[in-house]
Amino acid sequence: MAESKEKDWRFKLHEVIYESNKPAGKVFDVALLIAILTSIIVVMLDSVVSIHKQYGTLFSHLEWIFSILFTIEYILRLICIKKPLSYVLSPLGIIDLLALIPSYLSIFFIGAQSLLVFRALRLLRVFRIFKLGHFLTEINFLTQALKGSVRKISIFLLTVLTLVVILGSIMYLVEQRENGFSNIPESIYWAIVTITTVGYGDISPVTPIGKFVASVVMLIGYAIIAVPTGILTHDLAMASRLKKELPESCPSCSREGHDTDAEFCKFCGAPLFRD
Amino acid sequence: MAESKEKDWRFKLHEVIYESNKPAGKVFDVALLIAILTSIIVVMLDSVVSIHKQYGTLFSHLEWIFSILFTIEYILRLICIKKPLSYVLSPLGIIDLLALIPSYLSIFFIGAQSLLVFRALRLLRVFRIFKLGHFLTEINFLTQALKGSVRKISIFLLTVLTLVVILGSIMYLVEQRENGFSNIPESIYWAIVTITTVGYGDISPVTPIGKFVASVVMLIGYAIIAVPTGILTHDLAMASRLKKELPESCPSCSREGHDTDAEFCKFCGAPLFRD
Amino acid sequence: MAESKEKDWRFKLHEVIYESNKPAGKVFDVALLIAILTSIIVVMLDSVVSIHKQYGTLFSHLEWIFSILFTIEYILRLICIKKPLSYVLSPLGIIDLLALIPSYLSIFFIGAQSLLVFRALRLLRVFRIFKLGHFLTEINFLTQALKGSVRKISIFLLTVLTLVVILGSIMYLVEQRENGFSNIPESIYWAIVTITTVGYGDISPVTPIGKFVASVVMLIGYAIIAVPTGILTHDLAMASRLKKELPESCPSCSREGHDTDAEFCKFCGAPLFRD
Amino acid sequence: MAESKEKDWRFKLHEVIYESNKPAGKVFDVALLIAILTSIIVVMLDSVVSIHKQYGTLFSHLEWIFSILFTIEYILRLICIKKPLSYVLSPLGIIDLLALIPSYLSIFFIGAQSLLVFRALRLLRVFRIFKLGHFLTEINFLTQALKGSVRKISIFLLTVLTLVVILGSIMYLVEQRENGFSNIPESIYWAIVTITTVGYGDISPVTPIGKFVASVVMLIGYAIIAVPTGILTHDLAMASRLKKELPESCPSCSREGHDTDAEFCKFCGAPLFRD
Repeated sequence: MAESKEKDWRFKLHEVIYESNKPAGKVFDVALLIAILTSIIVVMLDSVVSIHKQYGTLFSHLEWIFSILFTIEYILRLICIKKPLSYVLSPLGIIDLLALIPSYLSIFFIGAQSLLVFRALRLLRVFRIFKLGHFLTEINFLTQALKGSVRKISIFLLTVLTLVVILGSIMYLVEQRENGFSNIPESIYWAIVTITTVGYGDISPVTPIGKFVASVVMLIGYAIIAVPTGILTHDLAMASRLKKELPESCPSCSREGHDTDAEFCKFCGAPLFRD
Repeated sequence: MAESKEKDWRFKLHEVIYESNKPAGKVFDVALLIAILTSIIVVMLDSVVSIHKQYGTLFSHLEWIFSILFTIEYILRLICIKKPLSYVLSPLGIIDLLALIPSYLSIFFIGAQSLLVFRALRLLRVFRIFKLGHFLTEINFLTQALKGSVRKISIFLLTVLTLVVILGSIMYLVEQRENGFSNIPESIYWAIVTITTVGYGDISPVTPIGKFVASVVMLIGYAIIAVPTGILTHDLAMASRLKKELPESCPSCSREGHDTDAEFCKFCGAPLFRD
Repeated sequence: MAESKEKDWRFKLHEVIYESNKPAGKVFDVALLIAILTSIIVVMLDSVVSIHKQYGTLFSHLEWIFSILFTIEYILRLICIKKPLSYVLSPLGIIDLLALIPSYLSIFFIGAQSLLVFRALRLLRVFRIFKLGHFLTEINFLTQALKGSVRKISIFLLTVLTLVVILGSIMYLVEQRENGFSNIPESIYWAIVTITTVGYGDISPVTPIGKFVASVVMLIGYAIIAVPTGILTHDLAMASRLKKELPESCPSCSREGHDTDAEFCKFCGAPLFRD
Repeated sequence: MAESKEKDWRFKLHEVIYESNKPAGKVFDVALLIAILTSIIVVMLDSVVSIHKQYGTLFSHLEWIFSILFTIEYILRLICIKKPLSYVLSPLGIIDLLALIPSYLSIFFIGAQSLLVFRALRLLRVFRIFKLGHFLTEINFLTQALKGSVRKISIFLLTVLTLVVILGSIMYLVEQRENGFSNIPESIYWAIVTITTVGYGDISPVTPIGKFVASVVMLIGYAIIAVPTGILTHDLAMASRLKKELPESCPSCSREGHDTDAEFCKFCGAPLFRD
């Protein structure tokens, strides 16, 4: 009897923590989101010198409350799941752990103070929000298209990196160690700033030949930005064709949330496609 | 008889104010557009110190004339429509009201002076211009595609915001409170400036490691700009397929302005599609 | 007899000047291109103070030689064509005339000196180069797609202009006449610099609220750049579908250069499409 | 017998150097990649003054070791291939030679010191990496799409160059030799910086009219960036249609690496397409 009761308790906890489509789970997820965002804002404000001077102690207390809360949450997640290890090793589990460690490290090591910045990783947990809305179809669709683009995009990035090294070296030769182009890595940094059309202006060509080379770099950057866009658009169209125009809701029971490779409704078993 | 006359008067006024495809309505709309644009230009010029000194009084007189004219127009709109409340609560009605309030507030409150800037909201009324041209089909088409992209674009924006917070925090750690990276919000501002390829150059990395991290941020920004473009292009194609190549004019009576989901001409009832 | 001889002479001249697919016409076109480019380079170099001091007299002589050559060419074009007025009023004819006038104006008016810059308009004549290559199919295809996008792009531009006026006004309010946001037109200029992701950095926000608003403007600019791209890509696909995969060369006589709306080969009359 | 032995030896060497799908060839290619990258990093670090002072002699020794290694590799490539001249004149062969020459030139000429920068060209050899992964299908696909876009992209680039010359000349006229717009080439450089949305801010308009012209240039640049993207996306779709959805692996023997125009598997002869 006692064991069954315990089972009940763990089952209920699992429902609250992991099942966001149940009312209790929804409330838990929303509360967790608010806690994460608040803790991030505390980290941010604490880095502002003037605010830190006034509210520093409050912030460090709040930080500890959040750290303890997230630790309790992490332990509860481990307790109520059947296979705790698979959670610990899942991407979300690793992020949850990474976001916890810095606070505890700062007790033992003084140098670990700077690690506190890694608490910003907590923000990654915000992606849980998509469990609340029905964004899974869109996420699946986007990740599938991105997966299809990975090889083409990596060819593109290698080409850009090669271009940037060569153009940076030429510029180093042209501007002759003056005007900020003091060494090749610096010139490559300039080439990246230019080819991506960011253009800080911290380093910019001064000599006429330098300006001519820079113009060529800019026009190259302007033209090749079309490449990743073209690739992705094309692969979205491919992913979409594979999807066979998946209906957002089942045509017979009208419930949503089917996988992109589903052929039949997972709720009522009716076929999802007409033809 | 008197009532019928009054009805006639209100009916005619309704035609002038609301029906831009009638000659009188067209004239009214064009006059309104000119008034709106002139009043915006007055607001702009009045903000320039040197011009304000010379023509300040003229401008404030003009402002009051425009305010009174737009108030009269607003009252006339309320009078001649059957359901005044639905106009007041419509997006265009809210904008019309918001653009009126600041002028009157400035009489009672001196601090409200700065609210005068909100008169720029009048510009939103310029979108009425599209009633004059036959832009409705294109607007419907674009809004439909944008609606289809909302979920995917919001996933993209959340990803960018998360990236920006994490990259900003890393940069704060790397550049050590110097060179403008004085706190995390400031570093996040820098990350946004960089990832969107704006690149003011008011804050830019100085240390070699900072420049390396910045290069990574730039290349990320350069690559992921493809994502919203790819999404929108794809959804425009989807919207276009749904449109079934909607004819701009009915094939039997050749009148235009049909909704994107119309199957039959709303003027003569003939089917809009051939097959 | 004399008249027939004159006819011959004019006919031959017409061939040289207007028909770039004949050998003589090709030579003339290439010579003209070189003359145009050289005259442009002379205008450019003459604007550099140090070079002007050394070669100023040479340049002004060259300028007069080019002006006289182009005048002779213009007169010859008028003589050998059947309908001179239709050439004068054609886009190319207007550009040819506009590029001639400044040189002659500078004799009578001293203030017209600055008009000499309009000689850069001669560069527009470079587009004649496309007559030499077989670029007409591509140009027709691109212009057709751009024509299809005109309405959608103008809706987009009006939206951007409205956004820029409103965001600029808000920024003027937020930054309070300091930091370069000295009046609304200046703030609108900043908003354009930011939303187009150019980001000079001549004006950039200083207050925290200003930086927040700027971040929003940047993210808007980053997201809406997708809109014109999406529209154009979509309309290129539409134009391509209308083109029915036009063969570059006729399937029976294999000659190229057909119009995009051609159904039959204009050289041998065979149908251009298989099905 | 001796000749057969020699044949064996050259055949084996050919396998190691040219056939990256054999184990020995893979090891050689990976080793070569590491050597190239290391030599590039040495060139980069050597350009940093502070590092050069400390490790300058080490770097120059390393440089000579790499130069000799690459020379030996180049000679081996010539020996073990049947037609050495076709390798020397191939793009990869030219790059290999170009990357060797600077080191040897620096012995005879002291001025050739600056040519050492051309050793960065070695990086182009990194593209051999794609032989290791199965990237050939993607590269073929991308180059085919880019080939289809060449004409349209060159029309686009000529239009941009014309725009930039005319807009730069107008700006030179408007800003009157002040504020960095000191001559037409300088103003054209500014126009390129602006229209490509790079925006260094080293030259930026100061007068109100100048700012207005700049705003127009920016909006043009913002709108026409859509053109190359639209073109490429469209041509990727065309290339993809031509590809007839080429399977990455043969349906009967499941081996990969087929050309984009292959109809039958080059390994087992089975047709690559189902229908």
